[in-house]
Amino acid sequence: MAYVGEPVFADMLLYRPEHSIIDQSLHANLGGFATNGDGFGIGWYGADGADGAPTVFKDTHPAWNCENLREIAPRIRTPLLFAHVRASSGTPVQRSNCHPFRHGNWLFMHNGSLADFHKVRRDLLVAVDPALFPDMEGSTDTEALFYLALTFGLKEDPPGAVARAVGFIEDVGRAHGIEYPVHMTLATTDGERVWIFRYSSEKATSSLYFSHDVTQVRALHPELDVLKKLGDDTRFIVSEPLRDLPGAWDEVPEASWALIRGADQETHHFEPVVPG
Amino acid sequence: MAYVGEPVFADMLLYRPEHSIIDQSLHANLGGFATNGDGFGIGWYGADGADGAPTVFKDTHPAWNCENLREIAPRIRTPLLFAHVRASSGTPVQRSNCHPFRHGNWLFMHNGSLADFHKVRRDLLVAVDPALFPDMEGSTDTEALFYLALTFGLKEDPPGAVARAVGFIEDVGRAHGIEYPVHMTLATTDGERVWIFRYSSEKATSSLYFSHDVTQVRALHPELDVLKKLGDDTRFIVSEPLRDLPGAWDEVPEASWALIRGADQETHHFEPVVPG
Amino acid sequence: MAYVGEPVFADMLLYRPEHSIIDQSLHANLGGFATNGDGFGIGWYGADGADGAPTVFKDTHPAWNCENLREIAPRIRTPLLFAHVRASSGTPVQRSNCHPFRHGNWLFMHNGSLADFHKVRRDLLVAVDPALFPDMEGSTDTEALFYLALTFGLKEDPPGAVARAVGFIEDVGRAHGIEYPVHMTLATTDGERVWIFRYSSEKATSSLYFSHDVTQVRALHPELDVLKKLGDDTRFIVSEPLRDLPGAWDEVPEASWALIRGADQETHHFEPVVPG
Amino acid sequence: MAYVGEPVFADMLLYRPEHSIIDQSLHANLGGFATNGDGFGIGWYGADGADGAPTVFKDTHPAWNCENLREIAPRIRTPLLFAHVRASSGTPVQRSNCHPFRHGNWLFMHNGSLADFHKVRRDLLVAVDPALFPDMEGSTDTEALFYLALTFGLKEDPPGAVARAVGFIEDVGRAHGIEYPVHMTLATTDGERVWIFRYSSEKATSSLYFSHDVTQVRALHPELDVLKKLGDDTRFIVSEPLRDLPGAWDEVPEASWALIRGADQETHHFEPVVPG
Repeated sequence: MAYVGEPVFADMLLYRPEHSIIDQSLHANLGGFATNGDGFGIGWYGADGADGAPTVFKDTHPAWNCENLREIAPRIRTPLLFAHVRASSGTPVQRSNCHPFRHGNWLFMHNGSLADFHKVRRDLLVAVDPALFPDMEGSTDTEALFYLALTFGLKEDPPGAVARAVGFIEDVGRAHGIEYPVHMTLATTDGERVWIFRYSSEKATSSLYFSHDVTQVRALHPELDVLKKLGDDTRFIVSEPLRDLPGAWDEVPEASWALIRGADQETHHFEPVVPG
Repeated sequence: MAYVGEPVFADMLLYRPEHSIIDQSLHANLGGFATNGDGFGIGWYGADGADGAPTVFKDTHPAWNCENLREIAPRIRTPLLFAHVRASSGTPVQRSNCHPFRHGNWLFMHNGSLADFHKVRRDLLVAVDPALFPDMEGSTDTEALFYLALTFGLKEDPPGAVARAVGFIEDVGRAHGIEYPVHMTLATTDGERVWIFRYSSEKATSSLYFSHDVTQVRALHPELDVLKKLGDDTRFIVSEPLRDLPGAWDEVPEASWALIRGADQETHHFEPVVPG
Repeated sequence: MAYVGEPVFADMLLYRPEHSIIDQSLHANLGGFATNGDGFGIGWYGADGADGAPTVFKDTHPAWNCENLREIAPRIRTPLLFAHVRASSGTPVQRSNCHPFRHGNWLFMHNGSLADFHKVRRDLLVAVDPALFPDMEGSTDTEALFYLALTFGLKEDPPGAVARAVGFIEDVGRAHGIEYPVHMTLATTDGERVWIFRYSSEKATSSLYFSHDVTQVRALHPELDVLKKLGDDTRFIVSEPLRDLPGAWDEVPEASWALIRGADQETHHFEPVVPG
Repeated sequence: MAYVGEPVFADMLLYRPEHSIIDQSLHANLGGFATNGDGFGIGWYGADGADGAPTVFKDTHPAWNCENLREIAPRIRTPLLFAHVRASSGTPVQRSNCHPFRHGNWLFMHNGSLADFHKVRRDLLVAVDPALFPDMEGSTDTEALFYLALTFGLKEDPPGAVARAVGFIEDVGRAHGIEYPVHMTLATTDGERVWIFRYSSEKATSSLYFSHDVTQVRALHPELDVLKKLGDDTRFIVSEPLRDLPGAWDEVPEASWALIRGADQETHHFEPVVPG
């Protein structure tokens, strides 16, 4: 889940919505796994003393029973929040494997998996820029994907870098006989813009939605008081809609990426590129 | 989940069955909660060096991602295993609140809850035998129920003691304006016999099953090799059936208790008794 | 450790000082235990969105290896911080037993122990105001001491309430044959004033210091740049001095309490009172 | 700490000795760190159902407050136990970084560190046999050292493989400008024999001891009843002596390795070898 908009308190995003991410950690209806109880994490911008850098808070237990999260969420006022609940696809449940991952001012999180990751892990790690390698702390497929994207230029050209990272992973995967190497919905941000991706080698990717511009939703649903409190530029990005509001959510199409910045958005076709 | 029978390795009970308890911790279909990820515990008899006392292993994370449980379960050979996955009804997720609870040679575990427990907790604790009180370590409704049952004679007369504990809790609860104070499926054992209870003040208790004598199940299902390995006296007690085997499971009726000892079983009506 | 003064970032208090509390958690020189690795906690005032209430962050692992604390401490800007590292004297290592404890706007933390706590625990709990009892979550001696002080009027008259709580505990303890029932250095605050206590039944209490008014320390040590950044009203309260600065620390005498409010302080004799 | 000898219960080894490893986790006198509270692990042979393979139990909290370890240790009867308490030198506190590490029938544990590990980590990982690489789960220097030793033939020739691994690490380290790349006391076993190593590039290695043949110790100390219960072949390997028994402990000399098998032992000079 990601939020971009006027500064709000994180508890309003994490705990209050129907079908909130905390609720989803207990029973995700559309995800590949029934339960996301293998750790969680949040990352946010705008913290006092942070100089624009994101702060992350991650732990290995389920989000729904984290008393520290419940304690600090109402104290976090932020214009940009990433939140993630994890269902491990095999790698250990440890803080260093929890999303969102951070590098400098960037955050990165991912639902899905790299198929047969243990088979390709070494080839992927070897391709990571040696100057970035020491910053890797965990052992998950997502961290490898993140560092490959960083290696291929994430900070300069996010869509291009992710296309090259995915192209590279598919290339390596197929060399190991893996039919569908990549399954991902993905979000990354530099603290101002958010890029989201939906893609799988099989072309059967889990769902990904973002909320329409709130002014439209407000017009459609004048009965909802909560919408009045949100600024016009508010955006939510979710795997599953937070509320059943007809007309409020846009599904990101299969094999697409979108850039979201304030009230503006653009959606493009996503095509992996094997790096030369 | 409880197992009584010939000594088997605990991993066979915990991980191998379809709809095993580990599987149920991820998505319980019939329970009041979708997910039982707020800690787990196992207790077993017959350990080397234990002199008949049960050993317990409990932790606060979900059972499904516990690498230590996965490690030790294949090394535990036991004729009597209790296993529990917890969905907290409000009290903290901490080891001292995980089931099964132990006192001397006895184990005790419970699904359900005492309604509005925070309102009645003090009255219940004050009624616990002061000689037993120092052994209480946690803060859950189940531990209070266990120590009330011990106070009312669990070790001498389990069905009578549980009837008095439940009667007392209902009495206290109603004095606090609680309509339905008790909801429980419960199992307790002295290491040889297992007593199970199904009762709720509302008479709408979650399910509880035990397996028929294996000889009958084997005759019904000659195609199932796994049944041949189990001794004739094998019994499983579960909230939800481990496999969809017609004829293999007996549901404990509403407001009943049963005593299971080897191939023998007896089922009785359960009626709370307000202690004089 | 407690800090009162101009708002500062918590990492400056927790990580930067020589002999900081994080350092002390690894090897406390003057405490009764060599290591305080059984959980930790911080509580602070002045958080955005908190309306004057304190926020607490506590966990069960050692403070020195908590990556979340290291992450959020530089984002916490506060004029009043309590920080505690725990060495369990026997009760379980669980979040609900970590200090500081909170009730409404109050925080409370304690070094020391109630001797033979398991023997007196029931008598102490029974004496807690039944209206306060449901707020108790843990099982430690310190939480019992806190709730007794609340019962005896902490929020109206902190020194008197603590005197009555200690008097009561000594009375109960001696009835159980305990020679020296209480050993405590203690700090409590309403968010503006801080009361500290040093007392033990044996009159041999662990150390407790508070820093002089910074203007004096600054005059004594013009070579220390860090002192220039601190406001004149700054106070530190510690079990062990943070730096070896002659003239910077005042030891609270045996059997005393002190009230600290801004640059003002007053120290009094502490005498337990058995409640009538 | 390692034990080889007649099968004994693990609690006798872990909790009973003066200066036991649990005690050492609270305050190690001779180690480089004051406290070993960043996780622990035990590995043992001879478990029922294990077919000769070692079982490991590891967790991220301090050993001294692990209630599960206290519970299962008296149930583990073993002729060969490895136990380790960790003080992280910078890599995350997570189970996958806890010792002992296991591969097939082998266990491996290490005190010390590879200097500036983040600088050399990539070069070391790339040198690990690609067929072994997928089995690596953590991020510590010790796991890298273990997998390099496996790559260089640990299972066929332990002293030679460790010499080549250390030689390789020193070579890589020096290429990165690291003066003293390796500091280690190390123990590894196949379940029958135990090899121990003491070496540092600086030739200033932490201490390592093994106990003499018990028959000699028994003759020296007829007053010690506990020695009568131990078989003649009993050996302890420790960083710090468990008791102050003159004549009971042999220090492994600087730059040496020893092979211990039953009552037999042999000690040799250890010389790193840069692989060709």
